[in-house]
Amino acid sequence: MAADKAGSELVALPAVELRDRLASGALTSERLVAACLERIERREPEVQAWAWLDGDHAIAQARRLDAWRASGQPVGPLHGMPVGLKDIIDTAGMPTENGCALDKGRVPTRDAFVVERLKQAGAVILGKTVTTELAFMHPGKTRNPHNPGHTPGGSSSGSAAAVADAMVPLAVGTQTGGSVIRPASFCGVTGFKPTFGAIPRRGVLMQSSTLDTLGVFASDAAGASMLAEALFGHDATDPATQLRPHPRLLDLARSKPPLPPVFAFVRPPGWDDAHPDLHAAFEELLEALGEQAFEVPLPTIFDEVAEVRARINFAEMARCYHRYKRDGTDLLGPETRDALQKGDGILARDYIAALDWREVLNAGLEKIFERCDAILCPAAPGPAPEGLGSTGDSIFNGLWTLCGTPAVTVPILTAQNGLPIGVQLVGGLGSDGRLLRTAHWLECWADGPHTDA
Amino acid sequence: MAADKAGSELVALPAVELRDRLASGALTSERLVAACLERIERREPEVQAWAWLDGDHAIAQARRLDAWRASGQPVGPLHGMPVGLKDIIDTAGMPTENGCALDKGRVPTRDAFVVERLKQAGAVILGKTVTTELAFMHPGKTRNPHNPGHTPGGSSSGSAAAVADAMVPLAVGTQTGGSVIRPASFCGVTGFKPTFGAIPRRGVLMQSSTLDTLGVFASDAAGASMLAEALFGHDATDPATQLRPHPRLLDLARSKPPLPPVFAFVRPPGWDDAHPDLHAAFEELLEALGEQAFEVPLPTIFDEVAEVRARINFAEMARCYHRYKRDGTDLLGPETRDALQKGDGILARDYIAALDWREVLNAGLEKIFERCDAILCPAAPGPAPEGLGSTGDSIFNGLWTLCGTPAVTVPILTAQNGLPIGVQLVGGLGSDGRLLRTAHWLECWADGPHTDA
Repeated sequence: MAADKAGSELVALPAVELRDRLASGALTSERLVAACLERIERREPEVQAWAWLDGDHAIAQARRLDAWRASGQPVGPLHGMPVGLKDIIDTAGMPTENGCALDKGRVPTRDAFVVERLKQAGAVILGKTVTTELAFMHPGKTRNPHNPGHTPGGSSSGSAAAVADAMVPLAVGTQTGGSVIRPASFCGVTGFKPTFGAIPRRGVLMQSSTLDTLGVFASDAAGASMLAEALFGHDATDPATQLRPHPRLLDLARSKPPLPPVFAFVRPPGWDDAHPDLHAAFEELLEALGEQAFEVPLPTIFDEVAEVRARINFAEMARCYHRYKRDGTDLLGPETRDALQKGDGILARDYIAALDWREVLNAGLEKIFERCDAILCPAAPGPAPEGLGSTGDSIFNGLWTLCGTPAVTVPILTAQNGLPIGVQLVGGLGSDGRLLRTAHWLECWADGPHTDA
Repeated sequence: MAADKAGSELVALPAVELRDRLASGALTSERLVAACLERIERREPEVQAWAWLDGDHAIAQARRLDAWRASGQPVGPLHGMPVGLKDIIDTAGMPTENGCALDKGRVPTRDAFVVERLKQAGAVILGKTVTTELAFMHPGKTRNPHNPGHTPGGSSSGSAAAVADAMVPLAVGTQTGGSVIRPASFCGVTGFKPTFGAIPRRGVLMQSSTLDTLGVFASDAAGASMLAEALFGHDATDPATQLRPHPRLLDLARSKPPLPPVFAFVRPPGWDDAHPDLHAAFEELLEALGEQAFEVPLPTIFDEVAEVRARINFAEMARCYHRYKRDGTDLLGPETRDALQKGDGILARDYIAALDWREVLNAGLEKIFERCDAILCPAAPGPAPEGLGSTGDSIFNGLWTLCGTPAVTVPILTAQNGLPIGVQLVGGLGSDGRLLRTAHWLECWADGPHTDA
């Protein structure tokens, strides 16, 4: 249908352009939300990205925001923009079921910090996107929009797939292992995991206080920057957050780097076992980048980091998800049950020892970040694997989650089978704006003549 | 000997008066340090408060400081004041043996944060005071100066005994359970444990990052305030510390409260098993305070706090003291060995659950602190017990250490056998100055006509 085609083309526009059209009056929020709903109606049976959606409620929000703008009142930076929220983010009066049978019918009474921020910014809460069970490894129903026989990745499966399929221009997710960067890579969108603690986690299902990090999805780095800028902040109830001047991420991301960026290519643990298409694509990419990329070895301490990260994740998960284990392990997926079992057996002294690693790892990265704008490495071990029984491997993500360093998926490579492969850029702690500027640069560069190199 | 009597009388003067005499030129640091050394020479065979002492080195520091002052250069707030340091506080070039056979002969190359601060303030590092083994429960050699058959308390045994015996006017200690407040009570001096994180711990033997707190000893609240004021600060390597305006503790401690202070008397868990002299003394005290004191129950959650605190302490100790266990448990005392064994068996999920208690406990105290200037309770379950095989029970201290609330021992009560009994005042988080002002008020009040009530 022509109308639907126009609608999906509209939603597929860069988020910043949509925001600008809304601001200029060239587009109404109602028109944009309707386009999202049309696309969802057609594609949702195949993609299944949504855990909860009420079109009437979304349209009502859009109309209210259009009327507000028409009245001449001041508007927020996302006024009228629809956003999808991973279903572990509490929304007052809107179901939040954490992808878990034990939370079926759960309706929070208070918005999460990021939902408050989105409402203040004028966003439309379009609906809740599918998460793996409790944001861990047991898959939800979502499929990869590029090929429904392949996983979309997880745990922020629905957020990545919905943005990739132009069902919504922006979405929020979380990462404890690789749950933003990997699904962004599998679905071919931009995923941004900021520095640990940059976005407060109040009202978001806690799996691991040391690792849980909120992140965002958009079709490009500028869109991700715009959304992240609205979410960065401080909340006294989240000790990971700090009172800091608010970064102007969007302006910075779109600014010209003072010099062409330089990339430090690393082969993280697991590189040798990655997909041959990935090896080939990275070889081409590095060749095309020429002198702007150089290879650097990761300190050997990174060889053990997957085990250390898992120890922290499982131990804290055993504590945080205690009530799920108590209330009915038979209603939990085998991956969740297994992790809870493992977590229950971890000793405090080993857990405490693992917590010391973050600082040591970051000390080891300092020398690398002195010489580059970003570390460059794969976002996942290959294109999205076939099958829906697993959401894939986070081997290339967990190390950066433990470090707390910001990371972004830049979706510029393609496998032989046509599925996307993401490049992961990693920045120094707190250098989120610079990282997004570098990601924006790489994105533009890949659109230019160099992609044929 | 008359000279020695004069010397010990000099050292027994309030620390602030000694500081003022030094400032006015009425007293030299050399004279004061010599008086300390004379007193130590006579009394040390009985009290055994010192782990390391070099009289020549101390006199040399004092002479240098006197010459500096004489030259008209600006001086620090403790210029010429001798200070004793618990032997778990690193001193560059001066032995720091942590009360442990495995650290015999250990000489740090860098000063702890507090030692740097003391040197900047012009203090004389008189020597290192005896600690229990690794600041845990296995007693050191120190005896109670009021009666050498009784314990001085621990783990800051030497610091408390040295100040109580007028060997030194000021000393620094640490508290993980009750290691400042209890020995101060047993020895009859003022002990002050500030809000958790107020004094940076860099260079101090770490037993438990969640609990370890530096504290100070003096003959009165003003002296403790003066010393603490020189030590409060921020250090980037100690995540418990914060960048905050520096509090003027001494001025505040000596200021007149706007209204006569009001005390909330609590009977903490263990009250019923306390010494009968303590029950009697508190009854008299409360009667004398009249309408300035009221009783309030602690929230019932405090009943479990001793077990929760011990779990955190033992788990973190098993991690921090791993190398001692590895290098030779046969050289460790049975209390230390036993705790390390227990700590090794604690599960991560139980440890993580215990960490959540601090916040819950403090929420329970908020209502109490709204109604009073300080909580009033015993500093220890009675006077110092007979015997040197144990340093006594920290049952009345550990709860406040876990809460992180500031606490001070006000030495105003006496048991039938003549040994001191301390009153413990506890303030709200961060209200250190107000607590010291209340302690100063109580001290003055007890010196006045009310003591006969």
